[in-house]
Amino acid sequence: MVKVGIDVGGTGIKIGLVDRQNRIIRENAIHTRTDIPFEEQLKHMADCVTATVKAEGLSTDDIETIGVGIPGIASAKTGEIIKCTNMGWNHVPFRSVFNRYIDKPVLIDNDANVAALAESVAGVSAGTSSSVFITIGTGIGSGIILNGRIWSGAHHIGGELGHVIFDLGGVPCTCGNRGCLERYCSATALIRMAREAVSDHPESLIIQSVSMDPARIEAKTVFDAAQAGDRIALEVYHHYIDCLAQAIGSVINLLDPEVIVIGGGVSKAGSFLLDPVTREYPQYVLFNDQPLPPVKLAVLGPEAGIIGAAMLS
Amino acid sequence: MVKVGIDVGGTGIKIGLVDRQNRIIRENAIHTRTDIPFEEQLKHMADCVTATVKAEGLSTDDIETIGVGIPGIASAKTGEIIKCTNMGWNHVPFRSVFNRYIDKPVLIDNDANVAALAESVAGVSAGTSSSVFITIGTGIGSGIILNGRIWSGAHHIGGELGHVIFDLGGVPCTCGNRGCLERYCSATALIRMAREAVSDHPESLIIQSVSMDPARIEAKTVFDAAQAGDRIALEVYHHYIDCLAQAIGSVINLLDPEVIVIGGGVSKAGSFLLDPVTREYPQYVLFNDQPLPPVKLAVLGPEAGIIGAAMLS
Repeated sequence: MVKVGIDVGGTGIKIGLVDRQNRIIRENAIHTRTDIPFEEQLKHMADCVTATVKAEGLSTDDIETIGVGIPGIASAKTGEIIKCTNMGWNHVPFRSVFNRYIDKPVLIDNDANVAALAESVAGVSAGTSSSVFITIGTGIGSGIILNGRIWSGAHHIGGELGHVIFDLGGVPCTCGNRGCLERYCSATALIRMAREAVSDHPESLIIQSVSMDPARIEAKTVFDAAQAGDRIALEVYHHYIDCLAQAIGSVINLLDPEVIVIGGGVSKAGSFLLDPVTREYPQYVLFNDQPLPPVKLAVLGPEAGIIGAAMLS
Repeated sequence: MVKVGIDVGGTGIKIGLVDRQNRIIRENAIHTRTDIPFEEQLKHMADCVTATVKAEGLSTDDIETIGVGIPGIASAKTGEIIKCTNMGWNHVPFRSVFNRYIDKPVLIDNDANVAALAESVAGVSAGTSSSVFITIGTGIGSGIILNGRIWSGAHHIGGELGHVIFDLGGVPCTCGNRGCLERYCSATALIRMAREAVSDHPESLIIQSVSMDPARIEAKTVFDAAQAGDRIALEVYHHYIDCLAQAIGSVINLLDPEVIVIGGGVSKAGSFLLDPVTREYPQYVLFNDQPLPPVKLAVLGPEAGIIGAAMLS
């Protein structure tokens, strides 16, 4: 028996077979198509699942469960996808339609929640029963694990740490509000801070290293320049680390999980990110004379999407 | 059989007997004394419990459990009070010492958590399995109920919504940080906003109604002046409501409980507080085209402390 994990993304859909040790034993992928009806999209996925189990010398009868991680919200109970903007899905009966093609238990959850689950079972937070996973990329995604299970809320709209107000009346957010945490802690935020800083400092290594083109500044550009000792880059870096430390302190003040896990593109900065954050976040915790949750870097990388989906139950 | 609920406060300790319908059938109180050793403090409490059950025609044998709500943090598992500044308790073995006097199961938790539990079982959120209780007074207290149980975190330091960062680098907080939510949503915050506003507007009813003495402004002063149509009071009131709506939106984005309950002194403003908050918070919820948790006013009042403590299990 194998479990199937499906990681639905805006450009591609990854499908993997996961064994009892939570390892991906075979992986496959199809392009995301939004130009065809919903039923056909699901038929393509199901066909890919069938082909993948066949290639492994198995049949769909050997499938235990099919888990699906989506960039949106879903009801684990009804199998309905409530909203998934990238795919153009709005209140679609994913499970019942998918079951026309493969009649196995189908479980659906948000992709950040699924990655949080993967890390908490097979990743850096394995063995813990509570954790908060924060994925730092273009935006901020998050997944909350409590008592060993995903907590996505009573209406499946929780776990959106990125849109908690962090700076009242602050930077306008893509969501329409101002001062969302995402605007201060994402890679996009780091890049914004860097662009603002170099506008008055053309001598900074940040802008020099991208041939004076602010559009080419990435998170890595800032980290590299800071590591090289560039003064402006260090200022931006310290401010960004401080924002992240305040965000982590806030999560602890509210939820106090056993561990906090940081993933996503920005986490590739490794100890250059983790070490100062670890030094600084305790000052933002109210009861900081108590044992505190450690902050750790995610270890599963992009595979977390498939592994976590396969773990849904 | 009865359950005993003990509500430990800085000036008084209230003790109540609670029946199976979660009603207080008899209440008693002693003064808080911090000038005597810990063991004696607990002896006084135990003596009061014994006297109270006797007065009800019962003995301590009829006690099922003794629950204790404290203004601090405690380990429900070990029965240790980790920290309770008001009482001068730091890592004290509450349960084992109390059991010398009355040998019944002793359960301890934070007072806001206990009030949250009371509302979720016998109060306005009865019948829900998840809720966030926000008590708005001098500070902001909060209690999180998930799957019918208090969530206070892995190290018992969670549920401190008041110290989540809400305004990066903003108003200095008593905790030593800046921009904590408590500084924008508590009664103290409303009073601060009013004092700032009237300093340029001596014609405002806010300051006129307290004989021009800013020290006498209370939350009620502001609400009353706003209700009377005072322009400055209305500005302060609208800004405060907006802060509260953003805080509630943030709680939903992160936790999405079934219901949000507002208690504490400020909740006495009733529908003058609740109605505009209810109108405004949805705009701060990311998925606000979905069903949202309603915001309700707490109904148990000060009794929540005893009732909730008696409900601990």
